[in-house]
Amino acid sequence: MRGVLCSRSDARLVDVAHDFPRQDVRAAAFWLRELLPSFPAATHLAVVDPGVGTDRRPLAIEAGEHALVGPDNGLLMPAARELAGDAPLACYEIPVEDPESATFHGRDVFAPAAAAVHDDGLDALDYPEVEDPVDLSFPEPSVADGEARGEVLVVDGFGNAITNLDGALLAGRWGEYARVNGDRVPVARTYDAVDADERLLTVGSHGAVELAVNRGRGEEAFGVRPGSRVVLDRP
Amino acid sequence: MRGVLCSRSDARLVDVAHDFPRQDVRAAAFWLRELLPSFPAATHLAVVDPGVGTDRRPLAIEAGEHALVGPDNGLLMPAARELAGDAPLACYEIPVEDPESATFHGRDVFAPAAAAVHDDGLDALDYPEVEDPVDLSFPEPSVADGEARGEVLVVDGFGNAITNLDGALLAGRWGEYARVNGDRVPVARTYDAVDADERLLTVGSHGAVELAVNRGRGEEAFGVRPGSRVVLDRP
Amino acid sequence: MRGVLCSRSDARLVDVAHDFPRQDVRAAAFWLRELLPSFPAATHLAVVDPGVGTDRRPLAIEAGEHALVGPDNGLLMPAARELAGDAPLACYEIPVEDPESATFHGRDVFAPAAAAVHDDGLDALDYPEVEDPVDLSFPEPSVADGEARGEVLVVDGFGNAITNLDGALLAGRWGEYARVNGDRVPVARTYDAVDADERLLTVGSHGAVELAVNRGRGEEAFGVRPGSRVVLDRP
Repeated sequence: MRGVLCSRSDARLVDVAHDFPRQDVRAAAFWLRELLPSFPAATHLAVVDPGVGTDRRPLAIEAGEHALVGPDNGLLMPAARELAGDAPLACYEIPVEDPESATFHGRDVFAPAAAAVHDDGLDALDYPEVEDPVDLSFPEPSVADGEARGEVLVVDGFGNAITNLDGALLAGRWGEYARVNGDRVPVARTYDAVDADERLLTVGSHGAVELAVNRGRGEEAFGVRPGSRVVLDRP
Repeated sequence: MRGVLCSRSDARLVDVAHDFPRQDVRAAAFWLRELLPSFPAATHLAVVDPGVGTDRRPLAIEAGEHALVGPDNGLLMPAARELAGDAPLACYEIPVEDPESATFHGRDVFAPAAAAVHDDGLDALDYPEVEDPVDLSFPEPSVADGEARGEVLVVDGFGNAITNLDGALLAGRWGEYARVNGDRVPVARTYDAVDADERLLTVGSHGAVELAVNRGRGEEAFGVRPGSRVVLDRP
Repeated sequence: MRGVLCSRSDARLVDVAHDFPRQDVRAAAFWLRELLPSFPAATHLAVVDPGVGTDRRPLAIEAGEHALVGPDNGLLMPAARELAGDAPLACYEIPVEDPESATFHGRDVFAPAAAAVHDDGLDALDYPEVEDPVDLSFPEPSVADGEARGEVLVVDGFGNAITNLDGALLAGRWGEYARVNGDRVPVARTYDAVDADERLLTVGSHGAVELAVNRGRGEEAFGVRPGSRVVLDRP
């Protein structure tokens, strides 16, 4: 894909990450939503595409000053909404002209399209509009009677289990305890506020409640993985 | 190596991959052959070099509009032939001037040479010609009486076992079955044409027959690894 | 972090490595010391930061023509001394203005500072000086009566166990044997000078004694890891 981009465009290439879990559309959609807003206006190319070669459409999205290119399986939608802010999203179908392979659209469809979108702009390309892109959204937590019910969305490379619970639930409670799935766990502003290998609840870099272990792996110590239920209440 | 390249050249650096298996000259030779033709004219620096510091020669190759730099252990040859097309290959020995180490020629020999080749061109460098570079080629499959016999060349990061069997053997047989090492397996144009975790035969992005599992790892399900024999015949 | 850098600076971004062990300040400090001197004058941004969000200071260091940015936990010091050579080090505290998170200073503190240091220069930024940066140094080996006592500092990606023993101890003894923790092991200038899977002692690319296995993993065959004692004497 980098070869195709270099062949067809003078765009500067910046890798966002090298370790997204393979084939996991939800995890990649989460990370793109978290990471892309730090970038200046750009064409973002992302391909996590278990349905490659099927009739799922290749998509290009205009989102504010950004463009996104990738499969129409929801991967791009959370990031696109974040990048667009108040601006409306405009989705287009990338035309496929008899690709060389049915198994590597990254190289044969998406990279050429990203080069074109970057160099010419989406307006000039006149791709047909898509009214019903496949959507993907993350579950909303519920909060009632001082009890918050959510779930683990992703586990990061450090083993921190990032939930969909709003970090505001913990704000100002540093040093206190909370109950997570029944266990009493300290609430800490920083990982290092507890001893090494001790569990903690904190607010991660993405503003959400994280289940973590200082210098260890939270997902193992809490016995959770993406999709696991997380119930948070007062001790 | 990147530091040396930045110190000695203004070349733009593009990483081809971050996960080639270490020390595996054959696998890297395969991937370089598959990946480099997507790039525009460039100096390609590749070091998979178990014989570092022995008397194996450091090599620079002119292949059409491309140059390649790396050890003379066959690593570069399949890609060089692919890049050269009808043009002849010209191989040169990179002079070694008492390198700092016998264990890291990537930094001490190959990166400086790649910077020089990129900036000055091979012609200007006047390296001595090499008539007998170490070659490396992949085995040819045999096809007779409707039975094709080949082998697994590499396993990609998704677990797809890529063979040396020509994808044309499967063309037009989508939806049918074939027998692989005795087992009846569906032939599918896309991974997602079979259920998740089901085995399939497909034509990979490189035009070769692949043993795959939809959303799973083909090499495990088929019990194969690089070098494993693959016999393909009608059901 | 790359997004922040691209948003705030036109600096060229070069990744030094993609596989430093997480949370391991000593290993990263070692690799930075080994790798950064190959680079031309640059702003080096490194964040291995188990104490993120605690009162450990964010640091910017002037080291000769180089600048370094990262946490004040010793991470940068060995590299800074190497880059500075005879020039004095000047350390400064990066001001933190109520960062968005207490758990991702890489994005919220260090990347913005690195962009500022690169674009404006440390002098122009007028950061307050730090007189007592946290130091980190590697243990010195002892040599007496023909016996050298040191330890494994790091294990590289190939499994080579890199010690703090000076490679000069082995120079000129190629083909002989030495005793390592009691075992008789060949001393070889290159990995490939012994048979595949055989152990050897060599001088690595960093000028230090390495415990290695030709085409295998030295740390496993020698049963060592970072911190393990290494006693080297004549056979």
